[in-house]
This record gives sequence, structure tokens and C-alpha cells, in this order.
Amino acid sequence: MTPPIFSASGHLVAIGGAEDRTSDLEILKKVFVLAPEGNQEVAVIATASGIPDQVLPEYEAAFFRLGASQVHCLDIRDRQQATDAETVRLIEQSGTIFFTGGDQLRLTNVLGGSPVLTAIRKRLEDGAVVAGTSAGAAAMPGTMIYNGSAADALRKGAVNMTFGLGFVDNLIIDSHFLERGRFTRLMEVGASNPEHLGVGLGEDAGVIIHPHGILEAIGPGHVILIDSRDLASSNIADLAMGEPVAVEHMILHALVSGHGYDIDARRYLVADELSAILPGRHAQ
Amino acid sequence: MTPPIFSASGHLVAIGGAEDRTSDLEILKKVFVLAPEGNQEVAVIATASGIPDQVLPEYEAAFFRLGASQVHCLDIRDRQQATDAETVRLIEQSGTIFFTGGDQLRLTNVLGGSPVLTAIRKRLEDGAVVAGTSAGAAAMPGTMIYNGSAADALRKGAVNMTFGLGFVDNLIIDSHFLERGRFTRLMEVGASNPEHLGVGLGEDAGVIIHPHGILEAIGPGHVILIDSRDLASSNIADLAMGEPVAVEHMILHALVSGHGYDIDARRYLVADELSAILPGRHAQ
Repeated sequence: MTPPIFSASGHLVAIGGAEDRTSDLEILKKVFVLAPEGNQEVAVIATASGIPDQVLPEYEAAFFRLGASQVHCLDIRDRQQATDAETVRLIEQSGTIFFTGGDQLRLTNVLGGSPVLTAIRKRLEDGAVVAGTSAGAAAMPGTMIYNGSAADALRKGAVNMTFGLGFVDNLIIDSHFLERGRFTRLMEVGASNPEHLGVGLGEDAGVIIHPHGILEAIGPGHVILIDSRDLASSNIADLAMGEPVAVEHMILHALVSGHGYDIDARRYLVADELSAILPGRHAQ
Repeated sequence: MTPPIFSASGHLVAIGGAEDRTSDLEILKKVFVLAPEGNQEVAVIATASGIPDQVLPEYEAAFFRLGASQVHCLDIRDRQQATDAETVRLIEQSGTIFFTGGDQLRLTNVLGGSPVLTAIRKRLEDGAVVAGTSAGAAAMPGTMIYNGSAADALRKGAVNMTFGLGFVDNLIIDSHFLERGRFTRLMEVGASNPEHLGVGLGEDAGVIIHPHGILEAIGPGHVILIDSRDLASSNIADLAMGEPVAVEHMILHALVSGHGYDIDARRYLVADELSAILPGRHAQ
């Protein structure tokens, strides 16, 4: 038996990057409404970013526009800061916790095993919404991709992976997926272990990960799913590093806003099916 | 009943672009050995290319290295030249006919309905090998893609298609496929009509299309197949132009050199299976 995908009472929202922050805020709006009722405090974590001074004010302005009572700009730069009690306190009182883009390896390297990360996991379990874009989305699962040119991928070893932040299991998330043509990255990962669902997020697109492993696509872009569990054959174990990987039979889906997917049942959910499954306010 | 994919007695070889022309010539060698026994004349058609003076000498040198007795460099620039009797004669006596890369729309616009194209079709029927790289590969089927940014594709209308050269039916060929991340282009085409197999050729990779619709992957790169025939649902017919296309269930394969695919049976062929199907010298 596989463990449950995701059993927290809060929601995860993984975004493919380049989501609108200044116009309709379509995706950020869907993040913010998932916060626990009555909690309008937002924590924005810019650890992944190389340009936090530019990125933090953008999200601050966007979340204020959406009705945030406070926006805590948390530019946690090193492991020392990731133990800071005041930072932990701000996270504990926030209903929305948002990870910016940047480099997912910086995110895990700075936050891995820290009190800040423990506090975020606890908030997710207790009902907060935890969202992230680009690197902030890629880092969410127990295992993440942190490097690998799409043009070189599907050659053994081209994709580099390591532990992620551990908010969700049994899937792997890639971002900027259509724009950077990253299908080969998730195919290589799927060949290496077909058990885990590949989730490829396009820009200005995302998925809400509902409790019980129901995915809901949001935003104007696409969410690509690569399901390798019925993989019939691959040569990957027989190859030397760098040799081309063969793949027989993966299943490919493209979800648009309002469509969903049941990870356990491996079932695509068209809009009507998704609405029937999700409780009232989340059937967006 | 669907018509036979390909019933000529010659072979087609579609190459994804950037094949080696100066070192081992791995792919060009596999093209040249498919020529009818005793015929070492090669015709190279540079119509697609914007730089024929650069490209033609490269192929001339490569085919001479492989043992060509003559290499006819045919830089057919306009429809008038595509009626030229001497050019037709050179094609009629060549055992290998090779299309360079460039712009596939130039290829069809110049050659469509011409005596030169009629002569090439006749050579293919009679046993010659007809090969093409990049644009020269994309133009081979009855229908071809000639435009559409991969980053914009999978939005209704992003991919532009028109009639191809008509050497093979029931499939669509895209080139530079992994390098330019063109999965979305073949997904859009597959959603628009799931009957036709999507063949995505990586650079320095190709497929030999054997009689009876057996594909054989060649070269150091990958050949990606997108099989949409079991498509479960798509919203494409309901969308306005430019809206994102949803796709439920396409099947994805990645072939490497020596692996194959039976188009009619929709069956992946690992190396042993392919060797068993192909007659002696073609089981490469």
C-alpha cells in the first residue's frame, strides 16, 4: 500500500512561475482564499530568490490588494536566520505562507531541518495554505529536481535530484514546463522510478493539491501530467551515464483551469467531475 | 479501414536535424546503405535551405566519403526549375534522394505538383531511398507542421499545418524535437485529430520508415512518439482560438537506436522484436 499522498488539513498550491502579480492576480487570489477563515496574515519567504529586494515588494503589494491584513516579508538568507524565533512566530500566526521563485537548492539548503521549516509543516497540517512559485513549487515534494537541461535530459543522469521540503509525497513537480520544454526531465525521472506522478506546471498556471490527493488546475496556463506507472519497459538500468534512455508507454495529460486529477485513482477529472468531488467553495 | 501507411518498395528516412556530416556519419551511412543495390548515385535537394551554397558541399563531401559514385547537387529555387527535364533525369537515375533542412514551406511551395516531385515519388515506389533532415523530414507526410512556437502551442490554432510532400500517410513528423521542447506541438495536433501518430525526431536521430509501417530508430538521439488514438477527451472543439487545450490520455514513447514501432499495431518493438521483424540487412 502506498502512503497517503497528502493528509494535511491545509492546502498546497504549486505554481509554474511567472504568475500575474500586477493585473488580475488570478492565481494569487485562489491561493489567498484558501487561507483559514478569519486569518488574513501572509508570510512571503524569499529564500530561493537572488533578488529578494525586487520580489518581496511585488508580493507584498499583490497580497495587500487581495485583502491581507499583514504581509511578513521573510528574507531568510542563511541557516542561522532559519532558527530565528521571531520568524517562527510570524509563520505560526500566518494563514498564507508563500515561497517565491529562484533556486530550489538554496531553499532546501537553507531551510532543511530548521525550526522555520518545522513551523511551516505544522501550519500546513493545521489548515494554512502553503503556496510556492517556480523554485518554490519544485521544492514542495519529498524529492525535487534541482538541475538538468531539458535538451540534454532523457540521457541517464542528466537530471539532478535531491530531497525537497517534504510537504507532499508521491509526486514530482517541475515548473516553467511548457515554456522550457521540460517533458524530457519528467520522462527521465519517470523511467528511473515509475511510481511517482510527474506534474509539469506551465507559467501562469498551477495546481491546488487538495487533501486526499485531488489536484485542481488553476490559472490561464497548462498543467501537464506524466503518469509512468504503466511503464512497459525502459533500458535505463542497463545504460552507462549519458546514454539515451528508451521509454515504452507513459501516459500524458494536459489539464486546464477547472480540470483535475485524482492521484490515487489515476483518474483525469473533467470540470463537472472535479466540482462533484470538491466541497463547496473550492469548486472554482 | 485505414489505408496502408506506406506501401512503396523503397525506404523513407526522416532525420531530426543536425545529424553528423563530418565525423562518423552514423545516420547518413544508414541512409546510403538503403539505396538499391548497384546504384551509388545521390541527388541532394537544397530547396528548403536559405544557405544552399554552404549546405550542398557538406552533403556532397559526406556522400562521397560513403562511396557515392556521383552526387547531384540540386538547388531548385523556384517552380520553373522544378519542371526542368535535366533535373528530373538526374532524380530518375539516383538511388538516394536527400532533402536538406531549411523551411518546409519553401519545399512544398516550390515542389508541390511539379514534375520533380512526381519523379521522386516514382523513385520511392521503385525502391530508392528518400531521406530528409529537419524541414526535409517534416515535409514528408501528407500533412505537415510549418510553424508554431512550442511555448505557445497547445493553445488552439498555435500550430500551423498544410499539405506535405505526400510520401507517407497517417503520421506527422516534427524535428529538433527534444532540443526545442516541441511536445506541445504534437499534442495540439493529436487533440485536433487523434488518428495520426506523432513522430518527434531529436537532433542526430531519425527513423527509417520500412514498408508496412515499421519504424526503426537510428542515430545517437531520441525518437519520441505521441500516440493519441486512445485520447479520452479534449475541449479543443469548444474553445475560441488561442485558448488552452486540455488533453486526457495520450501515450508517450521514447525510442533509441535499434528500437522500433509498428504503426498499424501501435506496438513498441524492443531491439529483439524489431530484428525479428525486419529482413536481414535492415536489422541494424
